[in-house]
Amino acid sequence: MKVVITGGTGFIGRMLARAILARGSLTGPSGAQEEVDTITLFDAVEPPAPLEGLDGRAKVVVGDISDKGLVAGLVDRDDVSVFHLASVVSGGGEKDFDLAIRVNLTGGLNVLEAVRARAGAPRLVFASSIAVFGGSAMPAVVGDTTKQTPRTTYGVTKSIGELLINDYTRKGFIDGRAARLPTIVIRPGKPNAAASSFASGVFREPLNGAPCALPVKLDTRMPVLGYRSAVAGFIALHEAAPEALGDDRVVNFPAHAVSVADMIAALRRVAGNRHLGEITVEPDPAIEAIVATWPVETGFARAGALGLPIEDGLDDIVRAYIEDFLDA
Amino acid sequence: MKVVITGGTGFIGRMLARAILARGSLTGPSGAQEEVDTITLFDAVEPPAPLEGLDGRAKVVVGDISDKGLVAGLVDRDDVSVFHLASVVSGGGEKDFDLAIRVNLTGGLNVLEAVRARAGAPRLVFASSIAVFGGSAMPAVVGDTTKQTPRTTYGVTKSIGELLINDYTRKGFIDGRAARLPTIVIRPGKPNAAASSFASGVFREPLNGAPCALPVKLDTRMPVLGYRSAVAGFIALHEAAPEALGDDRVVNFPAHAVSVADMIAALRRVAGNRHLGEITVEPDPAIEAIVATWPVETGFARAGALGLPIEDGLDDIVRAYIEDFLDA
Repeated sequence: MKVVITGGTGFIGRMLARAILARGSLTGPSGAQEEVDTITLFDAVEPPAPLEGLDGRAKVVVGDISDKGLVAGLVDRDDVSVFHLASVVSGGGEKDFDLAIRVNLTGGLNVLEAVRARAGAPRLVFASSIAVFGGSAMPAVVGDTTKQTPRTTYGVTKSIGELLINDYTRKGFIDGRAARLPTIVIRPGKPNAAASSFASGVFREPLNGAPCALPVKLDTRMPVLGYRSAVAGFIALHEAAPEALGDDRVVNFPAHAVSVADMIAALRRVAGNRHLGEITVEPDPAIEAIVATWPVETGFARAGALGLPIEDGLDDIVRAYIEDFLDA
Repeated sequence: MKVVITGGTGFIGRMLARAILARGSLTGPSGAQEEVDTITLFDAVEPPAPLEGLDGRAKVVVGDISDKGLVAGLVDRDDVSVFHLASVVSGGGEKDFDLAIRVNLTGGLNVLEAVRARAGAPRLVFASSIAVFGGSAMPAVVGDTTKQTPRTTYGVTKSIGELLINDYTRKGFIDGRAARLPTIVIRPGKPNAAASSFASGVFREPLNGAPCALPVKLDTRMPVLGYRSAVAGFIALHEAAPEALGDDRVVNFPAHAVSVADMIAALRRVAGNRHLGEITVEPDPAIEAIVATWPVETGFARAGALGLPIEDGLDDIVRAYIEDFLDA
């Protein structure tokens, strides 16, 4: 079978591609495990360097997700599964509303229509976000049955994606699943336009011996999940039996509800004798305003019932990052 | 100022136009009451007969709401308010998914963009529906803070419209409000493609001396509101101060939670000695399946706080219909 990952050259897309290649198979539209012979990593821009950890089964395609014909051409087999990760992120969406609508809404519809056009209702896993929650009506803990009240255009387009995933599934056009992700850490490389970018930077820059200027205060709380668990969760959600998912295909991913101070404490515990770059607090009102709209704690009863993984705590997340990106 | 009503030649659109003409003014983008000099009733098809109860200020424009340029041309003044009522309805949307997406989603975006293009963030009132609720996760009573889990494409597109109304408002592009309507009764004329059409027919056909074959059982419960209250509610929601609405602009309209048997009892009480056509029960599985996904009772705390009106009970609704359409 073929796997298409939109946003595939991003960090999560690459890690997901590696994990699928290592696994070798996924549940196909037939309902049986099918060998993965091709993974297409679709993205808006050419990666700056060749992607590591992949093999001849993987190829990169660059293009505009709002081009309906191009997206249809990616999903050119019935034995296919799609992971739709491509998205204008939170900070980017606040700066350019029209781009967020074009990429996230029009692009999302193009992906849904491309999968619908195939026979057998292939599986489609959509990366949503806890940014679907926010505002004054949001309760202290947001769970699987909490009303979506997004306060960013990013969160609005993710909510719309969830609704469409459910309806395309109900109609039998696709077999859709939506992964509602907390902030995923620790992303290697450079900061990105996500307002949550600091939640990786607070670990990454000090471990690289570089300074980290935090745009939010130390008592800022947010739900986070390690990338290993996120990637394993994407695959587990893809593999879940349709009957286990029921008529609402949106699943809050597990998360640790922690403060920035908790993150720094875990970093210092695990780093041991490593030299760490200095962490300073330099609040950025634009970032703080976005982060303030997000939930600080999530419920994830459905994820638990589906067996989606979570690390024991932040220390495990720091250890995994050191193992995968510093010691490797 | 100018008022544009999409879906304007439909029953609610016409009644709303009459009410605005009688009132003479609305709060304009300036924040002050402005005299209404033009009402454009936009709809997909020419009305079969000239519309009654209007005057020279009202004109009908026929066209396709998915035509972006056409919709932009309707909203051609900054001193404007728009009531966006046009929609493929529930039964119609289940029969033609692509039409529902084109009219309700693409058309809705066209209306939002047309209002956004004007200066001063004009007011836009969007007709949503309690069909945003449904499915196994729905609680017994659905309120202003209940998660949207629509189980029709109609309900999905209404949920998306609510999300976009909130985001366009948050961005300062428009001053949006969404009226989440229960089933509105008693609609005169002929049945339509809404699965809820019988809720008007059960009153209307017997009062016309015609037989009524109910597609659902007598113990079917649903929230209903009289059209006079719905029209007055649209205007009250338009007039509400932005501060009273806060950051979630979606308001559950008031409703009576009643059974079909309750409707028939009210009809018999109010009809007195009038001859009534015979009512029979002839279940239609397609209609029953859609109605079964809907909520049976709604909470409407915000509507109460905003002063949106509701009749004392079903008897008042029957009396109003007789006064407006039979005795007139």
